[in-house]
Amino acid sequence: MRQRKKKWAPAQLANNPRIIQDPAAYAGRISGYFDNNNPIHLEIGCGKGRFIAESSRQNPDINYIAIEREDVILAAAARHAEEYGAGSLAFLLLDADVLLDIFRAGDIHRLYLNFSDPWPTKKKRVKRRLTHEKYLTMYEQLAIPEIHFKTDNRPLFEFTIESLSERGWHIKNVSLDLHKSSLEGNIMTEYEMKFSSLGMPIYRLEASPPGAGQKPHPQT
Amino acid sequence: MRQRKKKWAPAQLANNPRIIQDPAAYAGRISGYFDNNNPIHLEIGCGKGRFIAESSRQNPDINYIAIEREDVILAAAARHAEEYGAGSLAFLLLDADVLLDIFRAGDIHRLYLNFSDPWPTKKKRVKRRLTHEKYLTMYEQLAIPEIHFKTDNRPLFEFTIESLSERGWHIKNVSLDLHKSSLEGNIMTEYEMKFSSLGMPIYRLEASPPGAGQKPHPQT
Repeated sequence: MRQRKKKWAPAQLANNPRIIQDPAAYAGRISGYFDNNNPIHLEIGCGKGRFIAESSRQNPDINYIAIEREDVILAAAARHAEEYGAGSLAFLLLDADVLLDIFRAGDIHRLYLNFSDPWPTKKKRVKRRLTHEKYLTMYEQLAIPEIHFKTDNRPLFEFTIESLSERGWHIKNVSLDLHKSSLEGNIMTEYEMKFSSLGMPIYRLEASPPGAGQKPHPQT
Repeated sequence: MRQRKKKWAPAQLANNPRIIQDPAAYAGRISGYFDNNNPIHLEIGCGKGRFIAESSRQNPDINYIAIEREDVILAAAARHAEEYGAGSLAFLLLDADVLLDIFRAGDIHRLYLNFSDPWPTKKKRVKRRLTHEKYLTMYEQLAIPEIHFKTDNRPLFEFTIESLSERGWHIKNVSLDLHKSSLEGNIMTEYEMKFSSLGMPIYRLEASPPGAGQKPHPQT
């Protein structure tokens, strides 16, 4: 499992009750961490955690997990969640590359990708985008029924539409200017609050993998 | 065949050699209109015809057909094409609804939809959008291998992505701000020139129907 082994590890990381200290202990049985059978929504890359903390407070019947590969960021998000009085929400210090080490097919009912790292549009780098085919394949293996994706980054959004389409994913509820659209109940990230206040468009879509409730094409 | 029967029909309509006077005479054999076997590219709704005239001049190995349902607009576009010295380009006074009356599967090698009427986002009206399922079905029956679509209308572009995805079309070369992208050789419509000069984004994509060179998904 690829975790960042920093010599300096914030004390908060060990002391915050919302942080799952030993992810490996829950490998293949992550739902056992929660004391209920509610669906699990996952956020990859939670930043300062505003989005996931608020989501968990608004939706007590959902279990939330946020993963982050930067320990300092994770610690800050978990601290914020505690102070904010978040709902059912746990944090994992984990790289998206090793999702399959912990999660099993059916564990995750929704995936949130909010303002993920856009990476430059170079062949080597686009492979790191969380909507690259490499990751979509992983989400398919995990049988995640839906992804909610938003970004301010135009090349990343263009790439994401193409990548999803290439894999046969079903794209819906597209918004090319989220804050001028009619979508209700949007929960903003810290980054989104700053960025949209400048009047720049936020792009958003939802997507489901092939076969997940997609209207079949008569020819296929 | 639904043609507009205006009492006042411009003399230009009858006198312009680029206008196919009797579309029905070419029903099922439109390629016979041209004296070669080059591929045919179709534009539905050509406006003043700048795009299609310039396209035909730049690409002498392509036969272009533009259809328009407004006789006055068609006459103006055909006149422009003559004055401009367009290439292999013919015009038809025709409503998109009756495409199948004239064209047969395999006739059209590319379809251009440039700044099509966006119609309001109401259930009854969206059916008139040229990327509505109703029309996509028609394009599939005609086995059109690719569509090139551009618009300045955000709701229409959002709708188009969803509609294409719903039908299992393959979306590629997406641009959410065409005039800031690296796409080369873009030929602008009159409308596009005006609109983009105001700094507003032009949205563009290409799409292919299911099965047309699409990378098959392993599960399907």
